[in-house]
Amino acid sequence: MALIVQKYGGTSVGDPDRIRNVAKRVLATQAEGHRVAVVVSAMSGETNTLVALAEDLGGSVPDPREFDVLVSTGEQKTIALLAMAIHGLGKSARSFTGAQMGMRTDTAHTRARIASIDASRILSVLDEGSVAVIAGFQGVDDGGNITTLGRGGSDTSAVAIAAAIGADVCEIFTDVDGVLTSDPRMVPAARKLERISYNEMIEMASLGAKVLQTRSVRFAARYGVPLHVRSSFKPDEGTWVVPEEEIMEGLFVSGVTYNRDEAKIRVRGVKDVPGVAARIFGPLSEAGIIVDVIIQNLAQDGTTDVTFTVQKGDYRRAIDIANEVGGLIGAVAIDADENIAKVSIVGLGMKDHAGVASRMFEVLAEKGINIQLISTSEIKVSVVIAESETEAAVTALHAAFIEVGAAEPVVEN
Amino acid sequence: MALIVQKYGGTSVGDPDRIRNVAKRVLATQAEGHRVAVVVSAMSGETNTLVALAEDLGGSVPDPREFDVLVSTGEQKTIALLAMAIHGLGKSARSFTGAQMGMRTDTAHTRARIASIDASRILSVLDEGSVAVIAGFQGVDDGGNITTLGRGGSDTSAVAIAAAIGADVCEIFTDVDGVLTSDPRMVPAARKLERISYNEMIEMASLGAKVLQTRSVRFAARYGVPLHVRSSFKPDEGTWVVPEEEIMEGLFVSGVTYNRDEAKIRVRGVKDVPGVAARIFGPLSEAGIIVDVIIQNLAQDGTTDVTFTVQKGDYRRAIDIANEVGGLIGAVAIDADENIAKVSIVGLGMKDHAGVASRMFEVLAEKGINIQLISTSEIKVSVVIAESETEAAVTALHAAFIEVGAAEPVVEN
Repeated sequence: MALIVQKYGGTSVGDPDRIRNVAKRVLATQAEGHRVAVVVSAMSGETNTLVALAEDLGGSVPDPREFDVLVSTGEQKTIALLAMAIHGLGKSARSFTGAQMGMRTDTAHTRARIASIDASRILSVLDEGSVAVIAGFQGVDDGGNITTLGRGGSDTSAVAIAAAIGADVCEIFTDVDGVLTSDPRMVPAARKLERISYNEMIEMASLGAKVLQTRSVRFAARYGVPLHVRSSFKPDEGTWVVPEEEIMEGLFVSGVTYNRDEAKIRVRGVKDVPGVAARIFGPLSEAGIIVDVIIQNLAQDGTTDVTFTVQKGDYRRAIDIANEVGGLIGAVAIDADENIAKVSIVGLGMKDHAGVASRMFEVLAEKGINIQLISTSEIKVSVVIAESETEAAVTALHAAFIEVGAAEPVVEN
Repeated sequence: MALIVQKYGGTSVGDPDRIRNVAKRVLATQAEGHRVAVVVSAMSGETNTLVALAEDLGGSVPDPREFDVLVSTGEQKTIALLAMAIHGLGKSARSFTGAQMGMRTDTAHTRARIASIDASRILSVLDEGSVAVIAGFQGVDDGGNITTLGRGGSDTSAVAIAAAIGADVCEIFTDVDGVLTSDPRMVPAARKLERISYNEMIEMASLGAKVLQTRSVRFAARYGVPLHVRSSFKPDEGTWVVPEEEIMEGLFVSGVTYNRDEAKIRVRGVKDVPGVAARIFGPLSEAGIIVDVIIQNLAQDGTTDVTFTVQKGDYRRAIDIANEVGGLIGAVAIDADENIAKVSIVGLGMKDHAGVASRMFEVLAEKGINIQLISTSEIKVSVVIAESETEAAVTALHAAFIEVGAAEPVVEN
C-alpha cells in the first residue's frame, strides 16, 4: 500500500465530465489499496476569466493581495466539485483550501514561496480512508492573507505536499504521455523517456519543454520526491523523474529542446575593465528582466563584446537599457537580433564525455547551420542559431544523438 | 464622524461597472468623514452558476460541506474585485473572507448560525483609514471549515458585523427606494415609509415584502442596530428600521402585504380530545414542513375542524400527511385549497386600537370579499381569502388605512 499524491491540471478538470473522470481515476487508485491525496488546478479558462475581471477593475497591475484573493477562488471551486464528484460515486472525500491544509508561505503575493505545510491535517483525512482533495497554487501567510505561488504553482504545491506527507510518489497528470526526447510536432521520431534524472528534467524544463515547471522539479530534487509524469487520458506508465543514482544506464543524451522565445543583444567595443558586466546587468536586473545566456569575449584591441539573451517580451526594454548603459560605458554599438532560437541537448551521459559538444557542432556544421553563441553546463550544451534553422537543427540533433539508439555514447574522445 | 456598515446585494455588484459604482458610493461616504465597512454578496447570477455545477457533480443534494466551499467563492470574488476597484480610485481597501474576519459559526453547513465575530480585525483596518470589504453570507466553524448562512445570509452578516463593531447604522442597499406601504405593482399609491419599527418590519418581511430577510431584522432588533434600507441607484434617504420607542408618531397601519404562495388544508370532523393538534402537526414538523396560520374551531356536535396553511411547495406532501393522520384520528374528511392568498395589515398603531381588525373586515365586506381564516398578532391582522381577490383586497385596505393619511387612527373604539 502506497501513499500517492496525484496532481491534475486545468485541462484535466476543465468541465464536469472531466472532473467525474478524475474522480474515477482517483478512486481506481484508492481501490488498488493506496492512500490518495489529489492536488488540482483551476478549471481551464477559469483563471483567464478571473484575470480579465481583475484587469477590468484593478488595471494592468491589480493590487497583488486582492489578486490572490480573487484567483484563489478558481482552485477552491475545483476542490469542492471534485469532492462532490467523489461523494457522488459513493466514496468519501474532504477538500482543503491552502489555509485549511496549513500551507504557509511568505507574503510575496502572486509569487509566494512555501514555508511549511501542516501534514497532519491531510494525513488524518487519509487515515480515515477518505481522499484528500487539495487546492494547488495557494497558501496563506502568517497573517492569514491568501497567497498564490505564481507560475507552475500547482505542480510545486503537489510536490511540496508529497514531501510533507512522505508520499511514495507524486504523479503529475498531463495531456501528454510523459517526458519526450523532443517536441513531437517538430520531431516525429520523438519518443517517451522511461526515466530521467531531476537535473536533466530541470534543464529540459527551463530550456523549453513545457511538461513540468522547473521550480517543482527543483523542489522534488531537494526533498527526493519521485515524480511520475503521465497521461490523464491513458492508463500507461509515463516518465519517472528520479534521483540520478537511480538511473543505472540512461540515454547518453536524453533530449533535444528548443526555445524560440528569446532575443539577442550585443554591447560592442566596451573597454575591458572590471565592473563592466555589473554595469550592464545591474540595470537589467533592477528592471526585472531575466537574462539567460551571457557570453563575453575579448577582442584583440583590448575592448570586449558582451552578448546576452532575454525573453522576447523584455526585448524592447532591454535594448533601451543597453543603449543607455552603452552610452555611459563607452560602447561602440548595440546590436540586437530578435530572430534567433536556442537549441540544446541535455543528458547525464555528457558529464563523462567531453566529445558531446564537439559532435553537436559537427552535426550542425554538416547541415550548414551557423552557431552564434554557445553555452554549456555539466549536463547540457546550448547553441543560439538563426530562428529559421530551428527545425533543421533539432531534427538533425535528435537523429544523431537519440535515434541512433540506446545508452551507448555516439562519440568517444 | 460615524461608523457605517453598507451592504450591497448581488444586483448592485452584478458586473464590473456596477462594482465601480459601489466603490464610488463607498468612497463618497468615506469622504464625508465616516469610517465604512462594506458587506457584499456574490455577483448576480454567480450563485446560480455555482449551484448548477454543484447539482451536476453532487446530485440534487450535494455534500453540504463541499457545497459551502463552492458557493463561498462567489462572495470571495466580489470582495477582491471591489477592493481592486477602490484601489483603482486611489484609495485603500482590504478584503476579508469569512475566515479572515473571524466570523465564527456553528457547523450547520448551508444554514449556519453566527456564534461570534472578531471585531478587532475590521476595526484595525478602518482605523488605518482603509475601507473594509467583507464577504457576506460566509463564516467558518471551530474546525476552520467554511460555512454559509443560508437564505438572507448577507443581510444577516451585515447586521451582525454592524453589531460587533458598534456601527451607528447598517445601510442595506437594494433596487427599491426603501420599505413601501404595499407592493407598488399592485397598489400604485404605495409610498415609501420614512421609519418603521423592527417588529413591524419583521411582520412585513415574513408576510411577503421582499426587501429584508426576517432573520436579519430579528438580529438588528436584538442588538439594537439601526437599519437604513435605501436605493443603490439614488442618493435619497430610504426607510429607517429602528426600535419602537424611536417612532414617536408612526402610521396607524404601516403596510398592507399579501402572500400568494400558501395553500390551505382542513382536517374536518375530528373528535375534540387533548392531543389532536399534536398528532396533526407533529408529523408535518418532522417532515420539515413549515405551517403558517393555524385555526381550530369546535363544531356543535363536539367534533372540531383544524385548518392550516403551508407553502405551496409543500402542499402535496402536506396533503399526504394530513390524509394519513386524518385516518388515524378518525377525521371525517380532508379539504384542501391551493387558490388562496393571505392579506395582512401591519402597524404598531393597532396595539392600542382594537377596532382595527373589525374595520378591516368591514372594508373587505364592502368589496364583497369573503374571509376564510383570520389570524392576529399584536401588530398585524391577517386574513386568508380567495387568491383571485388579492388585488381588490390589498387595494381597498391600502386606501382605507394608508391613503386616508397620516398618523391618525381611522377608527376608534
